[in-house]
Amino acid sequence: MQDISSYLDIAPEVQIALQAGQAVVALESTVIAHGLPYPANIEIAHAMEATIWAEGAVPATIGIHDGKIVIGLNADEIEQLATAAHVRKVSRRDLAFTLARGEWGATTVAGTMLCAHMAGIRFFATGGIGGVHRGAETSMDISADLQELSQTPVLVTCAGAKSILDLNLTLEYLETHGIPVIGWQCDEFPAFYVAQSGLRLSQRLDDVATLARLAHIQWQSGLHGIIVACPIPAAHAMEAAPLEQAIAAALRSAREQGIQGAALTPYVLSQVAQTTTGESIEANKALLINNARWAARFAQAYAKR
Amino acid sequence: MQDISSYLDIAPEVQIALQAGQAVVALESTVIAHGLPYPANIEIAHAMEATIWAEGAVPATIGIHDGKIVIGLNADEIEQLATAAHVRKVSRRDLAFTLARGEWGATTVAGTMLCAHMAGIRFFATGGIGGVHRGAETSMDISADLQELSQTPVLVTCAGAKSILDLNLTLEYLETHGIPVIGWQCDEFPAFYVAQSGLRLSQRLDDVATLARLAHIQWQSGLHGIIVACPIPAAHAMEAAPLEQAIAAALRSAREQGIQGAALTPYVLSQVAQTTTGESIEANKALLINNARWAARFAQAYAKR
Amino acid sequence: MQDISSYLDIAPEVQIALQAGQAVVALESTVIAHGLPYPANIEIAHAMEATIWAEGAVPATIGIHDGKIVIGLNADEIEQLATAAHVRKVSRRDLAFTLARGEWGATTVAGTMLCAHMAGIRFFATGGIGGVHRGAETSMDISADLQELSQTPVLVTCAGAKSILDLNLTLEYLETHGIPVIGWQCDEFPAFYVAQSGLRLSQRLDDVATLARLAHIQWQSGLHGIIVACPIPAAHAMEAAPLEQAIAAALRSAREQGIQGAALTPYVLSQVAQTTTGESIEANKALLINNARWAARFAQAYAKR
Ligand SMILES: [Mn+2]
Ligand SMILES: [Mn+2]
Ligand SMILES: [Mn+2]
Repeated sequence: MQDISSYLDIAPEVQIALQAGQAVVALESTVIAHGLPYPANIEIAHAMEATIWAEGAVPATIGIHDGKIVIGLNADEIEQLATAAHVRKVSRRDLAFTLARGEWGATTVAGTMLCAHMAGIRFFATGGIGGVHRGAETSMDISADLQELSQTPVLVTCAGAKSILDLNLTLEYLETHGIPVIGWQCDEFPAFYVAQSGLRLSQRLDDVATLARLAHIQWQSGLHGIIVACPIPAAHAMEAAPLEQAIAAALRSAREQGIQGAALTPYVLSQVAQTTTGESIEANKALLINNARWAARFAQAYAKR
Repeated sequence: MQDISSYLDIAPEVQIALQAGQAVVALESTVIAHGLPYPANIEIAHAMEATIWAEGAVPATIGIHDGKIVIGLNADEIEQLATAAHVRKVSRRDLAFTLARGEWGATTVAGTMLCAHMAGIRFFATGGIGGVHRGAETSMDISADLQELSQTPVLVTCAGAKSILDLNLTLEYLETHGIPVIGWQCDEFPAFYVAQSGLRLSQRLDDVATLARLAHIQWQSGLHGIIVACPIPAAHAMEAAPLEQAIAAALRSAREQGIQGAALTPYVLSQVAQTTTGESIEANKALLINNARWAARFAQAYAKR
Repeated sequence: MQDISSYLDIAPEVQIALQAGQAVVALESTVIAHGLPYPANIEIAHAMEATIWAEGAVPATIGIHDGKIVIGLNADEIEQLATAAHVRKVSRRDLAFTLARGEWGATTVAGTMLCAHMAGIRFFATGGIGGVHRGAETSMDISADLQELSQTPVLVTCAGAKSILDLNLTLEYLETHGIPVIGWQCDEFPAFYVAQSGLRLSQRLDDVATLARLAHIQWQSGLHGIIVACPIPAAHAMEAAPLEQAIAAALRSAREQGIQGAALTPYVLSQVAQTTTGESIEANKALLINNARWAARFAQAYAKR
C-alpha cells in the first residue's frame, strides 16, 4: 500500500547507477542551506560531488522542492538552496509537512538518511552527525539523527558528532540504541574539527573490504544505521583547547540570547567560525571532502562485494 | 503469521465504513473509566460520538472486554466501563495481559492508537496526549504515548499534552523521535485547558485539504504518528496563572502522599477539578468535543482525497 | 532481500526441534565468558542445559564464532568461550562487526534475543536483564537490553534486572517503551539475588497456560519482547541490606578506578562475589537454574498451545 515513488524525483545519472547496482553516495543539503556561509557552501557542495565522481561513484545531493524529494539536486537547485532566504530544515518530522506545502527543504542527517533509504541508497557522507547536546540531562535536547540511525539502514561517513555536543553522552545513547560506531583507521571517536576526543571506541576497521562485509552482514540481518567515524586529516585538524574555548563562549552567548532548538547548531557554528577567523570553516571543508572520498570508496567496495 | 483478526470485535457500522473507505474516528476509553467522574464521563462519551456522526463520520470508541479488542463499544459497554470498580488502564504493555486474562480494559492514548491501527483506523480524537512529566530529568516518568506516536501510523487530534506535564520537554522528546506536531490554525503548542503555552511550533496548517495531503504523504512514506494540536475553544479556555497554581498544588499533594506512576494523572486531574470548582471539567468537555469535530473533518478530507 | 541463513549455524537438535514446532530455549553466553569465574561458568552452562532437557525442551546456547552465529554451542565451544582471553561482548551494535572479523563473541541479553529471533526461537532464560544504571539521570548509561525488548519478539525469563541497577528507573523505562513485565507467581519486581524489591508490578500470572496465551496474543498482535520475572528460590535468596552495602562499595570502587561502560557490570559482580565470600555466586547459580526450568515450561506450554 505504501508507494513513495510518486514523491521521489531521482536524477537520471543516479537512477542509472542504482539500477546497475553501482556505487551511489548521498549528500545532505542542510550544510548548504544552513551550515556554511555563501559562497563556501556552494563551493563545498560541488567539491564533494567532484570528489565522489573522481572515485568512480555517483553523488546524489538530496533536498526537497515543489512537493518532491529530489535525489540528485542539479547546480541550479543547489544555488537556490544556498541563497534562498527561507529554506526549511527537514528532519523526519518535517518531511511530510514540507512536501505537502510544496516548500523548499534542506535535509538534515536524519532527513537525508530517510530520503536516501527511500531511494535505495545505502551510503551517505556528511560532516558530523547530531547527538546529545551538552546539558541534555535537563534539556532533553537530543538530535533526531540518533533515532534515525537506530531504524534506517544507511551507513553514515562522518568526522564524529559535531563538537558542540556532549560526545560522551552521545556514545552512551548510541550504545543503548544498538548503533555500531566504527573508528575508521583510528581508536578514538573523532571530535569533528579535532582528530581525537579521548573517548575510545570498541570497534576499529582499517580496510574497505571488511567494512563492506560488515555493512552487508548488518543489512542482511535486518539491522539499521552504521556510523563510520573518520578523523579530520591531520593537515587541517584544529587544536582542542582553543576550539573548546570558542565553543563554550558561543554556547554561553546562545544561552544569553535564548537561542535554542533547531537554531542552536547553526548559530554556534557561525560564532566559532568568527572567533577562529575562518579556521573552523577550512577545517569543515577538509573533513567534508575527506568523508566524501571515503564514503565513495566504501560504496564502491560494497558494490563490488 | 500474524493474525490479529481473532482478537478484534468490530462493530457493524465501523466494519461497513472501513470496507467502504469512509471516515472513521477512534475514541479512547481511559477518559471514560479513569479520566472524568460519573456521569460526566458517559455524557461526554456520547456527545463525542454524536459530534462525529453529525460531521458524517463514524465513531469507534475502543475498549477491551472478554478477551477481545472492541472497536466500537455500544452504550451498555460504555456504561459498564464508566461505572465498573476495576478497569485496567491499557497501554501497549498491558494489551496482551488484559486480553489473556479476559479483563475489562480502558485504552489510553497509546493503547487506542495501537488498537485503532490493528483495525485499520487512521484518525483518533482525544483530550490531550501524555508526555514528559515534570521532574522527568530524574524520575524518567515519560508516557508511553510518545513512543507509540513514533511507531504507529495514526493521526491524533488533541488539545496538546495534558497541562500537568512539562510541555517544553515533551516537545523536545517529540522532535528527537521524529513526530510531526501540527499547530491547527495556531502558532503555539496548546496547553490543554489553556489555549496557548508560549511554545512556538514550526508547523502550522489552516485547511483540511493540506492536512489530508500531509497525512497521505506521511503514511505513503512509511512514517508513523502525527499530532494535530487544536487549541481549546476561546469560550471555554481557562486562564493560565490560577490553573498553574492548582496543578502545582495537586502535584505537591501527590508527592506528599506517594501517588505516582499510572495513578498520578487521574489524581491530579481530579484535584484540579475540585480546586477550580468544576471549571476544568467543563473545559475538558469543550476541548474533547472540539477535537472530535476536527478529527471527523480530517478523516472526511482524507477519505475524499 | 534479507537473508540471514548464511550467517546462522544451527545445531542439529535445535534445527529438528524448531522444524517440529517443539519447545526450544535460548541461553546467553556472556554469563559464560564474562559473568561468572571459571569453572563455575562452565558448570552452570551445562546445568542450565541439563535442566532444560529434563523438562523436555531443547536448549540452544548462543555465541559467535568464525563468522557465524552459533545457535546451540557444543561442549568444546562452551569450554573455549569460558576460558579464552579475548571474547567480545556482543550486543546489537557489535553483531555485524564480530561476524565480519571472524572473532569469538559472547552474546548479551540483547545480542541473544536478536540472534534467537533470527533463528526462530521465542523463549530465552537468563539471570537478570540489563537496565537503567544508578546515576543514569546524568550518565545516560542505559543497557541496550531494554531497547531490544522493545523491538524483538522474545520472552525473557529472568530474576528481574541486575541488582547493581536502578530498578525503579528501569521499570519507568520499560513502561515508556511498552514492554510487559509479568511477575511470575509474585507481586513485586524481583531484585536478582534478593526475592523482593518493594516495587509492585501491575501484572502477575501464576499458571503457564495463561502465560502461553499472553505470549501468543502479544506476537499475533505484532508486539515484541516480554519480561517474565521469577524471584530467586527462597533457599538461596540473599538478604537485601548487606548485599546493598556490598554493591554500593563496589560501585564506589569502580568510580574511583574509572571503570565504566561495558566493563562495569562484570567488575561489580566480581567485587560483590568477593565481599559475600561466594554467596552471590551460589545465589546466581540457583536463580539461573530456576529461570532455565521455568523458561522450558513456558516454551512447552506455548508449543502445546
Ligand atoms: Mn534539538
Ligand atoms: Mn508514567
Ligand atoms: Mn552501558
